[in-house]
Amino acid sequence: MKLKRPTLLIDKEKCLQNIHKMKEKAERQGVKFRPHFKTHQSAEVGEWFRNAGVEAITVSSVTMARYFASHGWKDISIAFPVNFAEADEINMLAKTIRLNLLIESMEAFVFVEDNIKSKTGIFIKIDAGYHRTGIPVDDHENILILILEILHAHHHEFEGFIVHNGNTYHAGNTDEIQRIHHESISKVNSLKAFLDLHDIHPKISVGDTPSMSIISDFSGIDEIRPGNFVFYDVMQQNLGSCGFADIAVVLACPVVAKNTDRNELVIYGGAIHLSKDFITDNDGNRIFGLVVFFDKSGWQEPLPNTFVKSLSQEHGIIKTTPEQLKNIKIGSFIGILPVHSCLTVHQMREFSSLKGERITTYLSC
Amino acid sequence: MKLKRPTLLIDKEKCLQNIHKMKEKAERQGVKFRPHFKTHQSAEVGEWFRNAGVEAITVSSVTMARYFASHGWKDISIAFPVNFAEADEINMLAKTIRLNLLIESMEAFVFVEDNIKSKTGIFIKIDAGYHRTGIPVDDHENILILILEILHAHHHEFEGFIVHNGNTYHAGNTDEIQRIHHESISKVNSLKAFLDLHDIHPKISVGDTPSMSIISDFSGIDEIRPGNFVFYDVMQQNLGSCGFADIAVVLACPVVAKNTDRNELVIYGGAIHLSKDFITDNDGNRIFGLVVFFDKSGWQEPLPNTFVKSLSQEHGIIKTTPEQLKNIKIGSFIGILPVHSCLTVHQMREFSSLKGERITTYLSC
Repeated sequence: MKLKRPTLLIDKEKCLQNIHKMKEKAERQGVKFRPHFKTHQSAEVGEWFRNAGVEAITVSSVTMARYFASHGWKDISIAFPVNFAEADEINMLAKTIRLNLLIESMEAFVFVEDNIKSKTGIFIKIDAGYHRTGIPVDDHENILILILEILHAHHHEFEGFIVHNGNTYHAGNTDEIQRIHHESISKVNSLKAFLDLHDIHPKISVGDTPSMSIISDFSGIDEIRPGNFVFYDVMQQNLGSCGFADIAVVLACPVVAKNTDRNELVIYGGAIHLSKDFITDNDGNRIFGLVVFFDKSGWQEPLPNTFVKSLSQEHGIIKTTPEQLKNIKIGSFIGILPVHSCLTVHQMREFSSLKGERITTYLSC
Repeated sequence: MKLKRPTLLIDKEKCLQNIHKMKEKAERQGVKFRPHFKTHQSAEVGEWFRNAGVEAITVSSVTMARYFASHGWKDISIAFPVNFAEADEINMLAKTIRLNLLIESMEAFVFVEDNIKSKTGIFIKIDAGYHRTGIPVDDHENILILILEILHAHHHEFEGFIVHNGNTYHAGNTDEIQRIHHESISKVNSLKAFLDLHDIHPKISVGDTPSMSIISDFSGIDEIRPGNFVFYDVMQQNLGSCGFADIAVVLACPVVAKNTDRNELVIYGGAIHLSKDFITDNDGNRIFGLVVFFDKSGWQEPLPNTFVKSLSQEHGIIKTTPEQLKNIKIGSFIGILPVHSCLTVHQMREFSSLKGERITTYLSC
């Protein structure tokens, strides 16, 4: 395969393993698997899930829901608060597939009731500790009032609660991820006990990849919605969700300059390719990606003491060692393991398989 | 105009003013104006420059150079180190337009000499303090050796030096920006004095928007290449390069949820729309955008004590005051002034004029 510019390579075998592993775990634990497709954003990668027996999916926008519906998906949750301006699109879509919407206020549900005339499922977003969005999990009374309103609605069915513990991304270790998850489930269980008294039995849908990768006890959960696990990334490896060998995408970048005084490489590969997410190492360095060499079967483990230290629009600057610097030639391609694969995929808008086949997403031209 | 989703609005009048002001300044100072088009990335916005009398431009990739060449631009500098893998595309392009390439090592120039058979202009990238890329400005001997090699080449003409003082973006105030600029020019002047002894008289091309907006004395400069000034953004306002009223793009976003406990709004507008660049305020808050209301003629000044505090893939979280929270309804659209307009444009890949006309970029489908 002849590469010309920054190219997002996908290792299908690794993806299939990641899909298989999470699917198996869900089955073993007796929970429904409704993977989030916002990470790969691709009909073709979606087929790999379908071939593994997946039938229900999660997306994060109406646009993405329409794309996957047009590729044969018939059971889609939009895990993002209803955007009133897209009522027409939601109505159209809900006529043809099972569409679940997310709301987190009476105001939003009243809008849905008045404007969405096709049948939908309704999930309520619950804030069980992340404090980004959702109704606080301990606000039992208001949650009950909202559920009763939904239960009285003509076109809409109450599905349950969507919980996303995005705070696991700020955890220091896997113990903390487990603690965040179990504390959140414990609060959700109190809410469920309260609703039980009113004979209301919501489904509990949880989401984040760190928890879903690390915990082994899925008690109290009915459905899981991880997304990132299909590719993983440096952030997930750093959190303990995966090993380097599980990361299934890499950005191939041409080396365009070297600086021997500073032991730095310049690559064609910047913020417009990788996105600006970073992790911070123990020395306080911001790490925007790790560096790998390619071999016949794909790519190797990251080079030691070597990382992307900064990104401009098209430039990436790699800090490395004098020894590695000697091994890398201007004009050669090296691989960058992304810190946040969802955003890198969104930037690149298409993949190349290891054999050079183009794999498109909902944003490919 | 009926908005449905996050939409990047452009205020043409403000752009035209920004273009006019920089063009005037260049003329007054007697320097060539070769604006960087990586900020707007748009043939149509390019026409506004052409109408203002601009004939030569700067871009940051071969892909962008091809796009603008196909829209009639005949004098283009690619201010990014030559990517060897695109030699064929460079050869093709250099047959039809005046193409200037950027190199920063003998290795890169030898590749160009051996592989680029169409005539090009060659700029050498000089590092005058930013330490991202380029040959150190005080490495007089190696710079001379490289220039002599270029002067002996058949197909290539030595143009001069490209300097980009990106470190002005980290300046604390406008005095510091002036100091960085003048120190850099003073080092370049020493290099010029040395080359003068060898009867070599390079053009000096400088770039960054903060310096070009703030300094009033362009001595020692032959050409300026600012890009961001066409739109400016919150980062530039914060640096002192512009006022809020000069910012010419805004991301219109639907409000999808409110949290009265935390005085927060949730918008449909996240990292995939704005990019993750931020500035840090005096209280240590990371600010990913400022919030404006729309009116009949466009948008107003930013709301006080209100800012985008975090971004996920599609979500933006806005911190505001109880008073403002009351004024903003779920379902309404508010405007977000971007922190870094170049990256926001790249994310959105098209604009809407204030009248609702679509304006495309080189990445529009």
